[in-house]
Amino acid sequence: MPSATSDTLPHPLDPLSTGEIESAIGIVKKAHGDVFFNVVSLHEPRKAEMTKWLEDTASAPRPQRIADIVVIAPGGKVYDGLVDLADGKITKWELLDGLQPIITMEELVAVEHICRKDPKVIEQCEINGIPKEDMHKVYCDPWTIGFDERHGSKIRLQQALMYYRPNVDDCQYQYPLDFCPIYDAEKETIVAIDIPKVRRPLSKAAPINYHPAGVESAGGYRNNIKPINITQPEGVSFTMSGREIEWQNWKFHIGFNYREGIVLNNITFNDKGTVRPIFYRLSLAEMVVPYGNPEHPHQRKHAFDLGEYGAGYMTNSLALGCDCKGSIHYLDAEFPTRAGSVRTIKNAICIHEEDSGILFKHTDFRDESMIVTRARKLVIQQIFTAANYEYSIQWIFHQDGTIQPEIKLTGILNTYAMGPDEDTQGWGTQVYPGVNAHNHQHLFCLRIDPNVDGPNNTVFMADTVPSDAPVGSPENYYGNAFYAKRTKLTTTGEAKTDYNGDTSRTWDICNTSRLHPYSKKPSSYKLVSREVPRLLPKEGSLVWKRAGFARHAVHVTKYDDDQLWPAGRHVPQTSGEPSLGLPEWIGNGQQSIDDTDVVLWHTFGVTHIPAPEDFPVMPVEPITLLLRPRNFFASNPVLDVPPSFCSTPSQVAANGKGVTEAADRMSRLAFGEEKANGSVNGIGNANGNGCCGADGVNGTNGTNGANGH
Amino acid sequence: MPSATSDTLPHPLDPLSTGEIESAIGIVKKAHGDVFFNVVSLHEPRKAEMTKWLEDTASAPRPQRIADIVVIAPGGKVYDGLVDLADGKITKWELLDGLQPIITMEELVAVEHICRKDPKVIEQCEINGIPKEDMHKVYCDPWTIGFDERHGSKIRLQQALMYYRPNVDDCQYQYPLDFCPIYDAEKETIVAIDIPKVRRPLSKAAPINYHPAGVESAGGYRNNIKPINITQPEGVSFTMSGREIEWQNWKFHIGFNYREGIVLNNITFNDKGTVRPIFYRLSLAEMVVPYGNPEHPHQRKHAFDLGEYGAGYMTNSLALGCDCKGSIHYLDAEFPTRAGSVRTIKNAICIHEEDSGILFKHTDFRDESMIVTRARKLVIQQIFTAANYEYSIQWIFHQDGTIQPEIKLTGILNTYAMGPDEDTQGWGTQVYPGVNAHNHQHLFCLRIDPNVDGPNNTVFMADTVPSDAPVGSPENYYGNAFYAKRTKLTTTGEAKTDYNGDTSRTWDICNTSRLHPYSKKPSSYKLVSREVPRLLPKEGSLVWKRAGFARHAVHVTKYDDDQLWPAGRHVPQTSGEPSLGLPEWIGNGQQSIDDTDVVLWHTFGVTHIPAPEDFPVMPVEPITLLLRPRNFFASNPVLDVPPSFCSTPSQVAANGKGVTEAADRMSRLAFGEEKANGSVNGIGNANGNGCCGADGVNGTNGTNGANGH
Repeated sequence: MPSATSDTLPHPLDPLSTGEIESAIGIVKKAHGDVFFNVVSLHEPRKAEMTKWLEDTASAPRPQRIADIVVIAPGGKVYDGLVDLADGKITKWELLDGLQPIITMEELVAVEHICRKDPKVIEQCEINGIPKEDMHKVYCDPWTIGFDERHGSKIRLQQALMYYRPNVDDCQYQYPLDFCPIYDAEKETIVAIDIPKVRRPLSKAAPINYHPAGVESAGGYRNNIKPINITQPEGVSFTMSGREIEWQNWKFHIGFNYREGIVLNNITFNDKGTVRPIFYRLSLAEMVVPYGNPEHPHQRKHAFDLGEYGAGYMTNSLALGCDCKGSIHYLDAEFPTRAGSVRTIKNAICIHEEDSGILFKHTDFRDESMIVTRARKLVIQQIFTAANYEYSIQWIFHQDGTIQPEIKLTGILNTYAMGPDEDTQGWGTQVYPGVNAHNHQHLFCLRIDPNVDGPNNTVFMADTVPSDAPVGSPENYYGNAFYAKRTKLTTTGEAKTDYNGDTSRTWDICNTSRLHPYSKKPSSYKLVSREVPRLLPKEGSLVWKRAGFARHAVHVTKYDDDQLWPAGRHVPQTSGEPSLGLPEWIGNGQQSIDDTDVVLWHTFGVTHIPAPEDFPVMPVEPITLLLRPRNFFASNPVLDVPPSFCSTPSQVAANGKGVTEAADRMSRLAFGEEKANGSVNGIGNANGNGCCGADGVNGTNGTNGANGH
Repeated sequence: MPSATSDTLPHPLDPLSTGEIESAIGIVKKAHGDVFFNVVSLHEPRKAEMTKWLEDTASAPRPQRIADIVVIAPGGKVYDGLVDLADGKITKWELLDGLQPIITMEELVAVEHICRKDPKVIEQCEINGIPKEDMHKVYCDPWTIGFDERHGSKIRLQQALMYYRPNVDDCQYQYPLDFCPIYDAEKETIVAIDIPKVRRPLSKAAPINYHPAGVESAGGYRNNIKPINITQPEGVSFTMSGREIEWQNWKFHIGFNYREGIVLNNITFNDKGTVRPIFYRLSLAEMVVPYGNPEHPHQRKHAFDLGEYGAGYMTNSLALGCDCKGSIHYLDAEFPTRAGSVRTIKNAICIHEEDSGILFKHTDFRDESMIVTRARKLVIQQIFTAANYEYSIQWIFHQDGTIQPEIKLTGILNTYAMGPDEDTQGWGTQVYPGVNAHNHQHLFCLRIDPNVDGPNNTVFMADTVPSDAPVGSPENYYGNAFYAKRTKLTTTGEAKTDYNGDTSRTWDICNTSRLHPYSKKPSSYKLVSREVPRLLPKEGSLVWKRAGFARHAVHVTKYDDDQLWPAGRHVPQTSGEPSLGLPEWIGNGQQSIDDTDVVLWHTFGVTHIPAPEDFPVMPVEPITLLLRPRNFFASNPVLDVPPSFCSTPSQVAANGKGVTEAADRMSRLAFGEEKANGSVNGIGNANGNGCCGADGVNGTNGTNGANGH
């Protein structure tokens, strides 16, 4: 039985352990006294050094363990630092000017308590119709202020989105309040309140709740869902060595950090004995959620959930049989607390296999000789909670070499108060009486650091288009000619490209020095992504300036160890002047990205015009894309997956003798003997006898019933 | 336990039974002697009549059972007929001029046998390097000729795509022959052979096979896939009454015909006791697969698989534990044979439930009170084989009111011979030595006959766009304003609309006389489809003329009982002059489709530029789209699905007392006690104790570890 083991030494890409975090914190405190710790995280080994080590782990120098530190010292002074854990030395200590580091959970939860005690907030609550003795029923979702030109970025600020709960268990998002306090995280006080010109009173609507009491009062739970059991009595098909996983020819390292959450490194595929590199590093690197209501101060609602709060810091502790079913392996996460202790999030990552339907099938219509083979997928998942919203991030690996990042959106809409006779003017939807859910986008930026048969890759844009030759011309007489037009992206400027649904545009990450023996096309991985809305905030808008990565579906840059996060390293309260991250890295766009170590940044997502069906909690909405091998493998790489059933023409001619019959024996007929169309063959199948054979041959006789005539 | 029962009388939409087919055939033979039967299928009740009956099955007249007949009489005379089965009368008998009906399996399988005996074919095989004594190793995939201006449509013709098998069990698609015989189905002879100017010799490459012997010789099967068992010990959650299914508030009738395969009728949703109509009829109504190589005669490769061959006629007999896992209910299909007997395809349709991951989840970051509820989906599937290709058609129903048609492509690429030094010129890909797989599209046309809260519906096009107001203007000062621009499609001409990925274009099927109480928007179902390539054959091309439905992503027509199939009723050998089906129905485009009984035709699909990974058999490539309720339900319709875990703030405050804990008890830790991050909680979960609660609370303490300070 495969088991999870781990070396004594951490893998150079393993997250910092509890001990390493503690020692880093100790070293910093010794040198700089009491400070607030925003970040104590692995400073990833430089790629050159790491690559050398991977090539020869035995004798190449093992990359040092270095902690990446961000602290806030008294007076709101922000420092970036590096601590060498082996030497116990601080190797970098830099005071930042006008930059605000990521917000910690502790900073967030503090706001609500301050708001409840603040006289001006209490006054506004009273204007909204909440008596001062009910302030314990007032809640707020604390967000970074984003950027507000009146306050700038020198003072560390949050905006408090205000709500009310008649009862502690009510869903607060159905009782939004119409004003917005601004909180100074250094002084721990409310420094201002944004109050709308037109006031909106607290909704008097009866609550709608998804908790048991709420459901019972609305008629109770449905009782007609029979259990589906998913079990792996012989164990799972993957093995773990520390944080390295091996499954169906795949091998990679599963990292995790405060910022991006799951990070996958050194992704290789064992191609008939040859271990071929595909990606050096994959992660969800940033996202932005711009809201579309122009009324002040809603323009500040455009959360960079990774850069401002952290997909790691906000990640859920997952539970067996709830978030996943089957046989699950979990990995925990360790983070610093603001005060300098260590917190553990148990089961931060879940890893499991799923049956994935048919992998391939073919039947020969002549004799119904056929093959059917079932597919399996591996899912690496985390789920994080960003105030109201939940994001499930799944990294799905398929046997055929495809990698499928999938994001599932659920949780609760961000909502704002709405007057009884108010018109949303199209900027939102009244999803419940007095509840205005504003239009918004979820734009995710995937950082793809390719290593397709080696570090030097080139990106092409591929568009399927008709031949230029007109109908009736000798080259295209019948007008049916079409092909894939491939455009090489040679500079970072050229590589700023948008989606084109009309041509089913894709992007090919190619190794141009490795041509396929048959197709003569370069070995490649193709980015196939179909949910790619444009950034709807206009050019020159606040969001456009701050979220440079979202201006195009694809950017490509030359690899740089320090370019991990496309909206910049420190995102809160950036003005977008200049735009940090991708725009500054790309600059005039002259840098060559032809046949070199490149990084592809892909922005995709959804535009969400809310509807009442999304309230009070939103059924999962999935977004997905594919990274597919094209001209990478010699042929279909899954021919060696054992089929459920296979019969050849010669076996069919021999009345099915010698067919491969490995149908799943656990499957049953839904209604057993009572099956409306019950038949001996049908029942037979339940016992695994005959499978496609028996039915297939019947089918044959049927299908070709008149062959003889 | 739910069971499958059925009335004594067939439901008016049930396919013709064996007895009904036999009686229809008997009546025709009695009147017209020996003829070949191409179609004996249910002539569906007229909608007006059917609707009356559905409203009052007790006393409204039950629609008559009528057989739709197409026969070919001696001399190649084609007749369309109707037989009233109750009266035993032929009520319509019409001679068609220059129209060819759908091709039967028997017509197809006959071609290969004729080819092997034809001297001119034998001669061409010898030129290709196949000795005449090896003619039994020569195979052909018979296709309708499509349309060839040299032969017209009065003679019933097929084209034979030629292949060779060194061994009877070899995959023939790796040994294509370069010539194309043309077969006269009436005379059962080869009447012509298309021979390319430049000849391409038979490939001498070693075979690559996916059958066990082939896999064993290539290194054998992988042995590292552990079983995943999926069981429903308490049975399934759906019930069947004849062909009517009820599941999770859904109810509908499952029909099946030779042409479209699965047809779903009278789709309703029980909304808290009110049965609300949503769709009158849903089906995949047509498809076309244009190939992109301009060299003659490849322009003839653009199969209308439904109209020319039939998704029903070509459907597979499915098998338990192969095509589906779990608890499956099957429905058989009965069809006439060409000679006038009846053939049964066992298990033509499979019906089963699947766990569908998380339905919704939310965690309150303050205290980690949370809810997580798992989803379930219902899958109605058929798989049909179109010569080389396989298509799995899945109709997926979700608990939240979403319907998700999904098509999975697998099987084998259509291939053509390629000379050793030949260049594909971009029209195809050499996927194996000597094998040229031509570029092609799979364009599917979904026929959506909506009934959203009643028959009178209106279609709007919805585009998410920025506000027109410039950045800095009072209406859009920060430039973040965006909204859903809705365009009403008032006439059939206006309704010819294309996809726009840039605006995430969708189409809303609305009942404008039913506004949502909260959003004030019309009750609607939204078509969300992201894989919508344009038709790549040019305007005026043969394919463009014949496949009018594929010219636009969406057409909308006023309902007409006789307008079922968008490329026309009889598709083989149509010239496209005039274009049949949608173009003729729409005409000058002046007909109003505003607030009336409409049909929406949606063309979607993929453009396939082949790669060696697709050969010799193609791993499944899925295409999917959604029909989503928007402003249809008062609120989230799945709140009453029992959660796996739910804790409220008051329960968390009471140390988890009274939480709802219904985690799946069958789930286990992948490595049991050996779990690298093993923990009492972790193990506890395996026994269902604590679930999210225990971990959640730990998480809480962790997450908010510094609350106190």
